[in-house]
Amino acid sequence: MLVRIQTHTDAAQLQELALLLQNQQIRMERCEGDPTLLLLSGDTWMLDAALLRALPFVVDVQRTESVCPLASRDRHRENTVISVGGAAFGRDFVIIAGPCAVESEEQIRAAARAVKQAGGQVLRGGAFKPRTSPYVFQGLGAKGIRLLVQAGREAGLPVVTEITDPSQLPLFDEVDILQVGARNMQNYELLRCLGKTDKPILLKRGLSATLTEFLLSAEYLLKEGNNRVILCERGIRTFETETRATLDVAAIPLLKKATHLPVIVDPSHAAGHAFLVPPLALASAAAGAGGLMVEMHPQPQNARSDAPQALSGEVLALLSRQVRAILPCLP
Amino acid sequence: MLVRIQTHTDAAQLQELALLLQNQQIRMERCEGDPTLLLLSGDTWMLDAALLRALPFVVDVQRTESVCPLASRDRHRENTVISVGGAAFGRDFVIIAGPCAVESEEQIRAAARAVKQAGGQVLRGGAFKPRTSPYVFQGLGAKGIRLLVQAGREAGLPVVTEITDPSQLPLFDEVDILQVGARNMQNYELLRCLGKTDKPILLKRGLSATLTEFLLSAEYLLKEGNNRVILCERGIRTFETETRATLDVAAIPLLKKATHLPVIVDPSHAAGHAFLVPPLALASAAAGAGGLMVEMHPQPQNARSDAPQALSGEVLALLSRQVRAILPCLP
Amino acid sequence: MLVRIQTHTDAAQLQELALLLQNQQIRMERCEGDPTLLLLSGDTWMLDAALLRALPFVVDVQRTESVCPLASRDRHRENTVISVGGAAFGRDFVIIAGPCAVESEEQIRAAARAVKQAGGQVLRGGAFKPRTSPYVFQGLGAKGIRLLVQAGREAGLPVVTEITDPSQLPLFDEVDILQVGARNMQNYELLRCLGKTDKPILLKRGLSATLTEFLLSAEYLLKEGNNRVILCERGIRTFETETRATLDVAAIPLLKKATHLPVIVDPSHAAGHAFLVPPLALASAAAGAGGLMVEMHPQPQNARSDAPQALSGEVLALLSRQVRAILPCLP
Amino acid sequence: MLVRIQTHTDAAQLQELALLLQNQQIRMERCEGDPTLLLLSGDTWMLDAALLRALPFVVDVQRTESVCPLASRDRHRENTVISVGGAAFGRDFVIIAGPCAVESEEQIRAAARAVKQAGGQVLRGGAFKPRTSPYVFQGLGAKGIRLLVQAGREAGLPVVTEITDPSQLPLFDEVDILQVGARNMQNYELLRCLGKTDKPILLKRGLSATLTEFLLSAEYLLKEGNNRVILCERGIRTFETETRATLDVAAIPLLKKATHLPVIVDPSHAAGHAFLVPPLALASAAAGAGGLMVEMHPQPQNARSDAPQALSGEVLALLSRQVRAILPCLP
Repeated sequence: MLVRIQTHTDAAQLQELALLLQNQQIRMERCEGDPTLLLLSGDTWMLDAALLRALPFVVDVQRTESVCPLASRDRHRENTVISVGGAAFGRDFVIIAGPCAVESEEQIRAAARAVKQAGGQVLRGGAFKPRTSPYVFQGLGAKGIRLLVQAGREAGLPVVTEITDPSQLPLFDEVDILQVGARNMQNYELLRCLGKTDKPILLKRGLSATLTEFLLSAEYLLKEGNNRVILCERGIRTFETETRATLDVAAIPLLKKATHLPVIVDPSHAAGHAFLVPPLALASAAAGAGGLMVEMHPQPQNARSDAPQALSGEVLALLSRQVRAILPCLP
Repeated sequence: MLVRIQTHTDAAQLQELALLLQNQQIRMERCEGDPTLLLLSGDTWMLDAALLRALPFVVDVQRTESVCPLASRDRHRENTVISVGGAAFGRDFVIIAGPCAVESEEQIRAAARAVKQAGGQVLRGGAFKPRTSPYVFQGLGAKGIRLLVQAGREAGLPVVTEITDPSQLPLFDEVDILQVGARNMQNYELLRCLGKTDKPILLKRGLSATLTEFLLSAEYLLKEGNNRVILCERGIRTFETETRATLDVAAIPLLKKATHLPVIVDPSHAAGHAFLVPPLALASAAAGAGGLMVEMHPQPQNARSDAPQALSGEVLALLSRQVRAILPCLP
Repeated sequence: MLVRIQTHTDAAQLQELALLLQNQQIRMERCEGDPTLLLLSGDTWMLDAALLRALPFVVDVQRTESVCPLASRDRHRENTVISVGGAAFGRDFVIIAGPCAVESEEQIRAAARAVKQAGGQVLRGGAFKPRTSPYVFQGLGAKGIRLLVQAGREAGLPVVTEITDPSQLPLFDEVDILQVGARNMQNYELLRCLGKTDKPILLKRGLSATLTEFLLSAEYLLKEGNNRVILCERGIRTFETETRATLDVAAIPLLKKATHLPVIVDPSHAAGHAFLVPPLALASAAAGAGGLMVEMHPQPQNARSDAPQALSGEVLALLSRQVRAILPCLP
Repeated sequence: MLVRIQTHTDAAQLQELALLLQNQQIRMERCEGDPTLLLLSGDTWMLDAALLRALPFVVDVQRTESVCPLASRDRHRENTVISVGGAAFGRDFVIIAGPCAVESEEQIRAAARAVKQAGGQVLRGGAFKPRTSPYVFQGLGAKGIRLLVQAGREAGLPVVTEITDPSQLPLFDEVDILQVGARNMQNYELLRCLGKTDKPILLKRGLSATLTEFLLSAEYLLKEGNNRVILCERGIRTFETETRATLDVAAIPLLKKATHLPVIVDPSHAAGHAFLVPPLALASAAAGAGGLMVEMHPQPQNARSDAPQALSGEVLALLSRQVRAILPCLP
């Protein structure tokens, strides 16, 4: 951590700061020069840079270290591998697919069969749906989870579904992976609660989250003891409105460099239109994603939510083949 | 609601759609021409535009009506006035001020006195602090609320503080206004829970929320029966990094046109630097904001969170005088 | 074009508008209903929507047609193929590579050899460099063009280089493709001038240009008679700062759907770091790009501009092989 | 300038770099510590940070100095005052107003009278209009300039109009202030050309320009010898689409702190709707802007460009009175 200070800062003030930092196991060196600097080392991720910045003699603060000691690859070189059913996130390329929302027993069973047939390894399906408007379908709740789990068991697929509040946790006992949606990426109460479980967590990037903020949300989970965290890029909000969000493909190699956690991509929510899902999915695989989470529906035109972006079973199967064809050609 | 359809759409398909809509009290008219259109009227806010868009004969859907029947000014012309202590949001210009976080009894009492002296009408102070990093000060929790309420009572000021999870609600009994922070603007479980209380809610705009999404989050509160909602613009995330967020000043007149709810501004979180707070506060007042929420600290350089953006009591008092001086000159 | 009007708009006013439009070969139909609409058809791309919006009885205007009659695929279904040397943009996958700036005869000749060896089909090299700061290297100008052309001839590669002002045109006689940079995408004087030449134009998307604005800039070239326009996505400006720009991968399928012009990608300027170039290049190819423009340098660490994002000849050759390996697997 | 280097960097390599820098009058100090740093001082604005970043032993580079030695307030504490007719930019609050485009003699004369009557000090009017679509009105060109100058002379108002290409310069002889539009903020050929004139230049911020990039464009003008540069904030492109651009009010105090050049605001292009112009104009004045540039039209509904955002003469006069009323209340 670099702290630029005013050239003629009083030695006594610096001495006071040094003592304070020492109590937090942080070393401070002064570097005379132009500009004058303090170099802080040790567990500096514990420092709130804003507090230093507010000191009257401080000009600016720049971090040179990761602020995520647990999520960072600096201290954990090997990929974390998270095995769920037959799928090993962080080692194998994993395809998660299924409907935006569980709508009925018939629908989710048909979806499960189609996902299995397409070579998908995990079944998705929303039960508690965060929707921008309070007037549209909000998911089947507890019943949706039961139908999803049952359909997954039948098809031999582990399941993933979104949790939106700590109080729902008892309902997720048989769910294999718990999803934290983009809107809840900084719902820290939820993260703290999930960090205390032993379930794998699929954490989606918030619409306006920087990669550092994304990793810090993962850090909340890791800090509580749950190190089975899967990161999911799903597009960021930009000025361009022809897509629902702008898929940040560069986030894939950047995250893989920064962290040991698995990185997958949801091309469906970024796209917003079914015809854009295959090119975004292929692009994600080519950029090094470790998996995909794709929305499909046995009858896309009848979907009760996010219908325009759902693939049919046939298109999913074709996409799955194309993705698996390019994987061996990649670095 | 305008639905563009393919020119040669089968009449039977349209008939089916018309019946479906009729069940939801929505009228459908067909308008032959170039392009061919369906005009939907009635309670169309209940429709999920995505579902229409997914129909095979639909080309595009455009809303022409508000999707927020309760928050919209269309059906509720008069300003909603929310009285808290001596402050009447929606009628008077209200200044809320106080520290980012309650740190100690001494600190919050000093802050309360300074706010009162500066002419502020409501005391703020965080107890449950959502922080980007899990390693920095997260607030005093329940104790913080007690200290805040006590300091407010002593100074004769109602208090506002942030709630981050439904389970905390019992602790907020004596809190006058409950704040929903930017990160939780789309935490719908929290909104539904707060919508069932009779407390005024101060709802902050999310960092990447459009104004429509912001109003729809207010609609969640209103739909549950709580119509005492105060909207707070606090800056949006853009490419510019010299400020913490870009204050969207135009949001003030746009929101005032769209909704009957009071609209205030938090210039501190947008600014990120104390020297920027007064110009942004004055700009907000000049653009028609109905109040301000400003971070101050009895000793800014010792603040335990968001220190660089906190004003001293003296600067707050000066700013308050300047703001009140320009108000009579405005339209 | 849909024009929403006030319900009780005076018939005389509409009659006046209809006559005005008739003079521009535009038909106007009135569609009674809720809302009341005017449907405009014919050459409506010639209309300035803002002028309609300003009429006192108009509520809103929505375009339903392309505003780019020449660039649009609506009237020109087949891909435009642009042949330059052995490369056929719009039919074959074309790799353009070379240094950010021509620095010396030796450097550009070494680059040309490396590009040829890597299987590149076009040599790039900047001579007139638009640089954010006036204090850094601005390119060799006319001499740079001579060296580039000569190196290209020797290696058997056509060349592309950027033009930044109409007055430079005489210097570009032997240049095969003229590049318009992102900063000049809306330099309409330059576009008008280049539209009158018979040279292929490589037009880069501006940092904050929507796809419609991008196509309208191409339309300026086409309208003047030059239909040999190659579109190049190169990243947009967003809040994320870990990359120089956010590559908008979805722009590839969206542009290919909207226009008959070839669409290629520059992954280097989006990346800003060499290690990000290969994943972004592969992602672009996988998403359906028709080619790549990649910065390379015989000795990247000695490059005089954009050094951090330049690939070495070896890395370029490897990337080129990987890209060509995945192409046959794609839809 | 801070350069982080690898801990065990070879002394010989650093020696080589030090010599290189010495030739450019830049001192280099090595600061051992964690991390290891080089501190560069002297005329470091001349350095291209990217070149340092590309050196194999460099980890990162951070600027701590302004990159705009001429525009920066560091070396030029006093405000630059630019007098044009009776208006003194940088000292007095200056209101520029007039139509988006000069349309006819009658229109611009009526506009000039209205501007004068409203207390405006400078008349604006576009003659060379950069328009997103090639199919809409592009301005009257040379004739527009003649009409504008004549109308200004009659009304006793200096005039400002946009120049879009160096070749137009001879036509601007009698124009008092030359405007560089947002789209041309990084048209460096144009900037270099205008930097050689002795005319005041009104430079608009580009839609996606950071404040540093904006100042660097001003630096191009200053470097050529023209120090009469007026900066104009006019909104940036963000995800919010209810306004044409998001007015960055914080840019006003930030620019005033960073530079000695006058800073004014164009609220009309940010707003896009006439009803938003007064609140944005008042906000800008309250935030410390040194003037305004407002679009007005004698008959707004008949304007040939940007009609929806034009104020009538009456509204302009009212706004002008309100703005001048709040000025004395400000810090």
